[in-house]
Amino acid sequence: MTIMRIGRAELRVLDLEESIKYYTNIIGLEVVGRSQGRAYLKAWDEYDHHSLVLQEADSPGLDHFGFKVRSETDLEYYERKIEQFGCTTKRISKGTRLAEGEAIRVTLPTGHQMELYHDIQQTGKKTGTLNPHPWPDEVRGIAPHRLDHVLLTGDDVKTVTRFFTEALEIFQSEKIMTLDGEDMVGSFMHAQNGKAHDIAFIKGPDAKLHHAAFKVEHWYDVLKAADLLSRYDVPIEVTPTRHAITRAETIYFFDPSGNRNEAYSGGYITYPDFPTITWTEDKIAHGIFYHRKEMIDSFVKALT
Amino acid sequence: MTIMRIGRAELRVLDLEESIKYYTNIIGLEVVGRSQGRAYLKAWDEYDHHSLVLQEADSPGLDHFGFKVRSETDLEYYERKIEQFGCTTKRISKGTRLAEGEAIRVTLPTGHQMELYHDIQQTGKKTGTLNPHPWPDEVRGIAPHRLDHVLLTGDDVKTVTRFFTEALEIFQSEKIMTLDGEDMVGSFMHAQNGKAHDIAFIKGPDAKLHHAAFKVEHWYDVLKAADLLSRYDVPIEVTPTRHAITRAETIYFFDPSGNRNEAYSGGYITYPDFPTITWTEDKIAHGIFYHRKEMIDSFVKALT
Amino acid sequence: MTIMRIGRAELRVLDLEESIKYYTNIIGLEVVGRSQGRAYLKAWDEYDHHSLVLQEADSPGLDHFGFKVRSETDLEYYERKIEQFGCTTKRISKGTRLAEGEAIRVTLPTGHQMELYHDIQQTGKKTGTLNPHPWPDEVRGIAPHRLDHVLLTGDDVKTVTRFFTEALEIFQSEKIMTLDGEDMVGSFMHAQNGKAHDIAFIKGPDAKLHHAAFKVEHWYDVLKAADLLSRYDVPIEVTPTRHAITRAETIYFFDPSGNRNEAYSGGYITYPDFPTITWTEDKIAHGIFYHRKEMIDSFVKALT
Amino acid sequence: MTIMRIGRAELRVLDLEESIKYYTNIIGLEVVGRSQGRAYLKAWDEYDHHSLVLQEADSPGLDHFGFKVRSETDLEYYERKIEQFGCTTKRISKGTRLAEGEAIRVTLPTGHQMELYHDIQQTGKKTGTLNPHPWPDEVRGIAPHRLDHVLLTGDDVKTVTRFFTEALEIFQSEKIMTLDGEDMVGSFMHAQNGKAHDIAFIKGPDAKLHHAAFKVEHWYDVLKAADLLSRYDVPIEVTPTRHAITRAETIYFFDPSGNRNEAYSGGYITYPDFPTITWTEDKIAHGIFYHRKEMIDSFVKALT
Repeated sequence: MTIMRIGRAELRVLDLEESIKYYTNIIGLEVVGRSQGRAYLKAWDEYDHHSLVLQEADSPGLDHFGFKVRSETDLEYYERKIEQFGCTTKRISKGTRLAEGEAIRVTLPTGHQMELYHDIQQTGKKTGTLNPHPWPDEVRGIAPHRLDHVLLTGDDVKTVTRFFTEALEIFQSEKIMTLDGEDMVGSFMHAQNGKAHDIAFIKGPDAKLHHAAFKVEHWYDVLKAADLLSRYDVPIEVTPTRHAITRAETIYFFDPSGNRNEAYSGGYITYPDFPTITWTEDKIAHGIFYHRKEMIDSFVKALT
Repeated sequence: MTIMRIGRAELRVLDLEESIKYYTNIIGLEVVGRSQGRAYLKAWDEYDHHSLVLQEADSPGLDHFGFKVRSETDLEYYERKIEQFGCTTKRISKGTRLAEGEAIRVTLPTGHQMELYHDIQQTGKKTGTLNPHPWPDEVRGIAPHRLDHVLLTGDDVKTVTRFFTEALEIFQSEKIMTLDGEDMVGSFMHAQNGKAHDIAFIKGPDAKLHHAAFKVEHWYDVLKAADLLSRYDVPIEVTPTRHAITRAETIYFFDPSGNRNEAYSGGYITYPDFPTITWTEDKIAHGIFYHRKEMIDSFVKALT
Repeated sequence: MTIMRIGRAELRVLDLEESIKYYTNIIGLEVVGRSQGRAYLKAWDEYDHHSLVLQEADSPGLDHFGFKVRSETDLEYYERKIEQFGCTTKRISKGTRLAEGEAIRVTLPTGHQMELYHDIQQTGKKTGTLNPHPWPDEVRGIAPHRLDHVLLTGDDVKTVTRFFTEALEIFQSEKIMTLDGEDMVGSFMHAQNGKAHDIAFIKGPDAKLHHAAFKVEHWYDVLKAADLLSRYDVPIEVTPTRHAITRAETIYFFDPSGNRNEAYSGGYITYPDFPTITWTEDKIAHGIFYHRKEMIDSFVKALT
Repeated sequence: MTIMRIGRAELRVLDLEESIKYYTNIIGLEVVGRSQGRAYLKAWDEYDHHSLVLQEADSPGLDHFGFKVRSETDLEYYERKIEQFGCTTKRISKGTRLAEGEAIRVTLPTGHQMELYHDIQQTGKKTGTLNPHPWPDEVRGIAPHRLDHVLLTGDDVKTVTRFFTEALEIFQSEKIMTLDGEDMVGSFMHAQNGKAHDIAFIKGPDAKLHHAAFKVEHWYDVLKAADLLSRYDVPIEVTPTRHAITRAETIYFFDPSGNRNEAYSGGYITYPDFPTITWTEDKIAHGIFYHRKEMIDSFVKALT
């Protein structure tokens, strides 16, 4: 039974047209469809129809994120597992959103909406699958390879971690513990896909989005992203640096609605037999901002 | 049921002491144990006791490689699957090699020896798992993160691919087909771990090793590797370039016994639902050496 | 008295329109003017009106290259020095080419045409000189910062070196000597500008061009250049590697007329008090192709 | 007449042994001599005997910096020019410091001590000048190529700029002006060597050091430097970012005495005919920290 990856996120944005401009020109995604107040976008290196949905709304934030499972059987399997865990699921019917089939929606212990799905049109990449070049002809902006992960806040990090590791059987790469070892205040989890994380939680208000992250190739692309954001006056919150947690290179910035984005490169590979790395809360700034070693106020407070 | 990764390779080398010098000073692995004419080495970013075994022998080549499975149950499961496929297995008893438990050995349709195993001491990394720094204090040489994959040659690439995708249930990321589409002359396969390949085959003599590859971080590390190899007169066969197949950045060179090594960075992420990329044989040079687009004689002929 | 830099090169090309496409779309220069069968181009990071002139002609090669001096007084000074050295000069009148003032033309001991000039319109960069962004809005192709150097062939490398170091008072960073130390077969020279070379000569037929080089930022840009060239089927002669001579990272390829181009990053800084590095002819392959350490046939033979 | 480069800086440090450890293990310089409470160090890619002198003292700061001129005649020439400008010079006799000959010392309009010198032993690099490898066998720490520049503070930036451009005939690459265009509050100047700056001034208290900068190769080396500093608990003030001024990539941190250091890569090339780039004071944060666009308090206040 296989959860493959975080496959999509649906963000609430205040002004759809302005957001489309940002996500296409600055981030460099491609609009693949529009319908009923939503825009559907994908990164150039993704096979599925879309990975990002923008939904015009009164307040920014995350409508939901979704994990793609390997088969319809997996969908049923995890539906049962989730209910056994004690969460309620409901079926989202085919056609609710463009190019998607049926999905299962669940409210997480942290109040976030998550979907599991298998059925989505696989429209492929411009490079094709026959004697492909490594890059498409044209890329724009930051030009990430893919949607990489979302980081959310919630009150009960321990329980939501149990949900993912027990009901969804995914893996915890790192955790942040209070000094007395009693409470978990940070949790980074990944499906069996080698990634450092697909989904992460930091203690904070329930049902909030901290950031949605896009994968770029190299530390040079992080610099290029920072230069481009500065060039076009996109507010950068965290300038290029390394996380000790996940070991990745990173930059944080905001979309026009105030949703935080990350451009992210590097990071280690993970396997099911790798131990969970533990951080103690006193080292959290070191873990998140390895070079600065001090927390950034807005990084804790600005949530959508 | 889970095959996690290629976890080890045992290479035959002509002069053990000279080989240890090369694999520690040039490649930058660490010797973690010696026993009965064998040296055991690991890369700095691996948790398990070792990933490379050097065995003094009369001729170079690959003694065997091994895939680590997630549990002892998986071991039994794949043992049955392999036998159902029609290959003979035998149990390798605990203690045959240092720090390893029981393993299953099988002769592949291409004549290579492969093992499946779960039990190996997990000795960890110098950075530890509590508030770790991203790097250890000291790294030497090319300093790869891990053993990444082996590429082997064999006559029947189609059957050995069937073995891996059916009996071991791993995935084919890319294949090279003859122009008439009848025969498979190249096959790149990976476990469910996001890697572009753990194991690959190119049509050629049975039971031969083409190369063993080590993962480095960046294209800069490929340059650093090339500079270091030139600095210490290690013969470089393929200077820094990109593969279109796997999209990785690469350099090839030879260990003192003539076993080909690769230092490898980048490459795309893979998932079970990704289609297999197809190369036609007329584009094989383009696929392997994206910038040169011509085959290199020795690259086809030098096998161990 | 100051020679500042190689400021322009005029290349003969077989098909002007095709060449313009190549130098704008692939190299990423900008056409700044056309006149009388010539196209004038510049790189995005150059202040002067143009650095490359394309001249339609029956055979490829170098019409001339030019060194920019600091003032008109310098022009007269070097005119005298050149004549004292024994070369004949002639004045090229203002208006011979677009945006250029008067220049001095001299036939080098190797038969090449060189000009010295001061007067050229300084049209600036798109980033401007008031609170500039580091990059312009749009760059295309390889997008080099500037024309960097030309390498020419000639029979008498020693004399042409004396011409540059004595008459033009520029500096020799490196030289290649025959094993007996009698003859100079390679010479790399730079004005007082920190560059590793503005002009270089390798023993060979007189009056021939080996290559014209463009400066890119990083080793990553060398990879990007290689990928782009492969993407658009431009023949790459030398895939990404390092020179030991000048220490630069490099790739060589050909324009549509067969003129060799180089994209070049890195290299050391030079000063007037730095000793000349000496290479012995037996190490020439090591000096030029640090990783390969073998000469490439075409690299010696393909001249325009 | 030629000023070649900033060739040395002498820093006051509180604890000589601790400082030597820092400048050798962390920065990666080599101690080349010790004498009379001073330690002499050089970077691996410098030919002269030393570029950094550490002097044990009661307070940190800059004892002096020195520009190397091309000949003894140049020394006399600039001695006269400096006196004509209205500054007093005195001769520092040979043997005052190790491996140095006679020098001219002058008190700048900003109160800093500067020396001009030609005579210093040229002890060469470990790579030698005959068929050299691009790198020495061993480098440690950040391993910069050279001392690159110093940035100082002073009240009268305009006058000290006139001193350098008129008396020393060097060039101003960039300047920061008050909004009314009346006062100069920043000035970046370089000798004729292609560098973006050898010496810079920012308005502030006289006779103070803002930072001494070391040149590294690439943006990756800036990351490596940041990782290393964090690894060994060296306080980083400014994490990896880009300057718009000079366009360089950078990181700032402190030596054990509180002297600010910079590791610096990239930056544009300069020539005598390049216009001076102008910044208006309201854009100073954008100019210095291109990604952050906000000034950092300590960056203004921490001076030694």
